[in-house]
Amino acid sequence: MLNNGKLDKDSKILIIGCGLIGGSYAMGLSAKGYDVTAVDTNPASIDYGIKQGFFRRGYTSATPDVLRQADFVVLGLYPTALLGWLRDNQQHFAPGTLITDVSGVKTNIVDVAQSFLRPDLEFCASHPMAGKESSGIENADYRIFADANFIITPTEQNSAEGIATVRQLAQILEFKTIRELSIHEHDRMIGFLSQLTHAIAVSLMTCNDDEELGFFTGDSFRDLTRIARINDVMWSELFLLNRDILVENIDCFAAELDKLKNLLQDGNREGLQQMFRKSTARRSQFDVAKAAKA
Amino acid sequence: MLNNGKLDKDSKILIIGCGLIGGSYAMGLSAKGYDVTAVDTNPASIDYGIKQGFFRRGYTSATPDVLRQADFVVLGLYPTALLGWLRDNQQHFAPGTLITDVSGVKTNIVDVAQSFLRPDLEFCASHPMAGKESSGIENADYRIFADANFIITPTEQNSAEGIATVRQLAQILEFKTIRELSIHEHDRMIGFLSQLTHAIAVSLMTCNDDEELGFFTGDSFRDLTRIARINDVMWSELFLLNRDILVENIDCFAAELDKLKNLLQDGNREGLQQMFRKSTARRSQFDVAKAAKA
Repeated sequence: MLNNGKLDKDSKILIIGCGLIGGSYAMGLSAKGYDVTAVDTNPASIDYGIKQGFFRRGYTSATPDVLRQADFVVLGLYPTALLGWLRDNQQHFAPGTLITDVSGVKTNIVDVAQSFLRPDLEFCASHPMAGKESSGIENADYRIFADANFIITPTEQNSAEGIATVRQLAQILEFKTIRELSIHEHDRMIGFLSQLTHAIAVSLMTCNDDEELGFFTGDSFRDLTRIARINDVMWSELFLLNRDILVENIDCFAAELDKLKNLLQDGNREGLQQMFRKSTARRSQFDVAKAAKA
Repeated sequence: MLNNGKLDKDSKILIIGCGLIGGSYAMGLSAKGYDVTAVDTNPASIDYGIKQGFFRRGYTSATPDVLRQADFVVLGLYPTALLGWLRDNQQHFAPGTLITDVSGVKTNIVDVAQSFLRPDLEFCASHPMAGKESSGIENADYRIFADANFIITPTEQNSAEGIATVRQLAQILEFKTIRELSIHEHDRMIGFLSQLTHAIAVSLMTCNDDEELGFFTGDSFRDLTRIARINDVMWSELFLLNRDILVENIDCFAAELDKLKNLLQDGNREGLQQMFRKSTARRSQFDVAKAAKA
């Protein structure tokens, strides 16, 4: 049990799944002197984390004893794996244990988890909006959070203390900004800013098979397709979990691109210019927003 | 007349239109000791270029005398302005004068220009694939060419000497690579790599009016929309000149995005994963191509 809901140096923090994000959490928490235990089915990940000092204790399976000692649990698992794991293992947690996750989609995860969770446990979901092109604990680095948003998605089932503890986690890890959003707000935002952009980058990368093009690519094309290198297992999960919102966003974007195409086919120079001026103005606002956040 | 078709320190190089690209050409050529004269209707641009040493002589209008002395002319004008200018002024050039341009689209420009050009002049088109988010001679810097492709688009009307001189220009300006393409090959490549990407970035930027989003944008969204800040006059010209090819590219991309949407709606996890693996593999090839070019 946490002391007044606060993480301190005596709190037992348990990270389940030590990939890029779970590993970066472990690294950052240990760097600040917190007591971290890790579980990962891959022995090499555990060896690496112990050697690097990312956690004090590491195990390849979550024994009842390890789970019982945890005060605060971070599920660093893929979204759907998370649900199965929690269903199978929640019986071993001590009453009052607080649990959070790192999933990029919240609908169909948070509501489901909270529906079967033991009433004496708390699941307060959150999403570190950070990543890298390479995965695995070997690429872990908690400094990737310094320029990233941390989103907490509380529901009516969460306590003020639980939310505050998850916020404290983000503070310890030095996220640039911490915000609270409802599950629906979060998934709408992610559906547009992250999932739609990945859907576009993938489609752009796969729609043309001309091998010669690689020679000519400039920065624009490289910028647009950088995120077309994508973890196929994780992103297909994220897309499917947020299917309705992502389909809506694709439709909205496709309609706008079709509008541009029609202006072009009609030879409507003024219409094109208007659209370009609007995009220029909106893009400039984004830079203002970024500067304000910095 | 050039000495055996070669630019040397006695060659009179005339740049018509000193914006970002014309100005960067002038800067680079002068830095290498070549004799550059510039014409731009904006007196401030001429003042700036003289002060910076980008050219020895600068004028706000192209007098017959200035035109007659030129051996090699670079038209740094917007594509459609280029045609009108050439039609109105070609009478003043000395026989044997070689002309090139900097236009981002070649169909409807090169064929038209060559159809009315005096038979004793030569127009050998080229495209420096370089740019910046900011325009004007004040932002000129020939070092932007060091990482850029230079494309020459010769036709049957061009001589081996004319093509070699344009190639020499690109060498002096230290372009990373120099390639020859047919007009059609050039416009197909540009329609996909440059114009389609700009059409996508603009549509992504204008399809959602939520002002709050600026707060949450991460690197993916910023990368995809960096080029949504776009010169409305120049890009509407470029789009309209390459209308058929760009429409074809938009259709091809939209069909691919629709395919992704259908996989998503059908809950086809394996189909999504296949598409993601394909995009990952293709994007990796591009990085290999870039490394090979470097």
